[in-house]
Amino acid sequence: MTATGPGSGPETAGTPARRRPGGRTARVRAQILDAVRAELGEHGFDGLTVDGVAARAGVHRTTVYRRWGDVGGLLADVFDAANDDTWQPADTGSLEGDLTALNQEIQTAMTARPPVMAALIAASFRSEQAARAQRRLWEDRYRRCEVVVERAVRRGEVRPPVDARRLLVAATAPLYHQLVLLGTPADPELPAHAARTVTLAASAGAFTHPSPPRAAPPDGE
Amino acid sequence: MTATGPGSGPETAGTPARRRPGGRTARVRAQILDAVRAELGEHGFDGLTVDGVAARAGVHRTTVYRRWGDVGGLLADVFDAANDDTWQPADTGSLEGDLTALNQEIQTAMTARPPVMAALIAASFRSEQAARAQRRLWEDRYRRCEVVVERAVRRGEVRPPVDARRLLVAATAPLYHQLVLLGTPADPELPAHAARTVTLAASAGAFTHPSPPRAAPPDGE
Repeated sequence: MTATGPGSGPETAGTPARRRPGGRTARVRAQILDAVRAELGEHGFDGLTVDGVAARAGVHRTTVYRRWGDVGGLLADVFDAANDDTWQPADTGSLEGDLTALNQEIQTAMTARPPVMAALIAASFRSEQAARAQRRLWEDRYRRCEVVVERAVRRGEVRPPVDARRLLVAATAPLYHQLVLLGTPADPELPAHAARTVTLAASAGAFTHPSPPRAAPPDGE
Repeated sequence: MTATGPGSGPETAGTPARRRPGGRTARVRAQILDAVRAELGEHGFDGLTVDGVAARAGVHRTTVYRRWGDVGGLLADVFDAANDDTWQPADTGSLEGDLTALNQEIQTAMTARPPVMAALIAASFRSEQAARAQRRLWEDRYRRCEVVVERAVRRGEVRPPVDARRLLVAATAPLYHQLVLLGTPADPELPAHAARTVTLAASAGAFTHPSPPRAAPPDGE
């Protein structure tokens, strides 16, 4: 489980014999979603097929077609399954520490091998069903992270009322931009730097409603 | 032409009769790249074919195959052609103003109809050749934007030495994250807000080498 959603670590990739909670239906779902992540990490979207997933999971293909429909349905369920977990952001005692920990989780997930998370994001450009599920998951993750901002307000680090979502997007966006769009190698300093940048801005009132201060006196005003 | 690269406005979409600088080779290239942008904006990557581009441009398909090879080659050349323009960031007189103008250009390009820019970014997940060309273009655009930071240093808005690239990525990343990955509707306040956030952080030393200040005294240190 990660900050960004579907796990990509060894606990979720290709261990179909692991004991699962729930009955047979839940067990089949877990096996199938493990197989989707593993196939995606190894072959990417272009190598992902319902038949390949079924074979890897040891589940009859008609079961997969009946329940998930197609590759888009499988991908969407990987995102949706991540909504069911108990992930919470780390509580380190400071806003900067919490945001750094969050960013480090994101960077670790995005650069993991096999590249399950990166492949899931790329796949969301191929399947509208997967894209919608990814947006639901991100909405869920940012909502869970709002506690980071609430704690910062309680500690007096940020003056309320705060636009928590904007703060969280500003803190995490540079990681996604560098790794997903700009395609630059992971910068080990970026998680902490992006966290510090947003913490400095938050201290200066950038995310405080209703009227954030101007950073500098603009010309002609 | 825009901050983010290949133009998507009426000046570049489907005006093959316009007079072009250069000889016949340059004219054919311009017609072909216009057709790529127009086809991509109308049909997306899945509807983009060499034959469709050739037909739209009124150029023989063998010319297109010989010179560009395939769809990946066509997309890469759209990105590369944007490197040849004379785009420069606006000079508004303040760091916050310059970053706001830059972000507004990005938001306008990303939300334009037809969605050429958004389709180009999506296409870069389909073609490694296009992805490499997109990275070259982004590198070029961020390099051209460094003058924004140099002007801010000269005006005394930011204490040197400054990591200009980090500042520019931090300022623009929320736009891309919201529009490309999170898929949220364009927020008309975001361009200015992201600019103000980064300007406040820059004033507080977030991008000044070698040791940015800590935002708040962390626990236990």
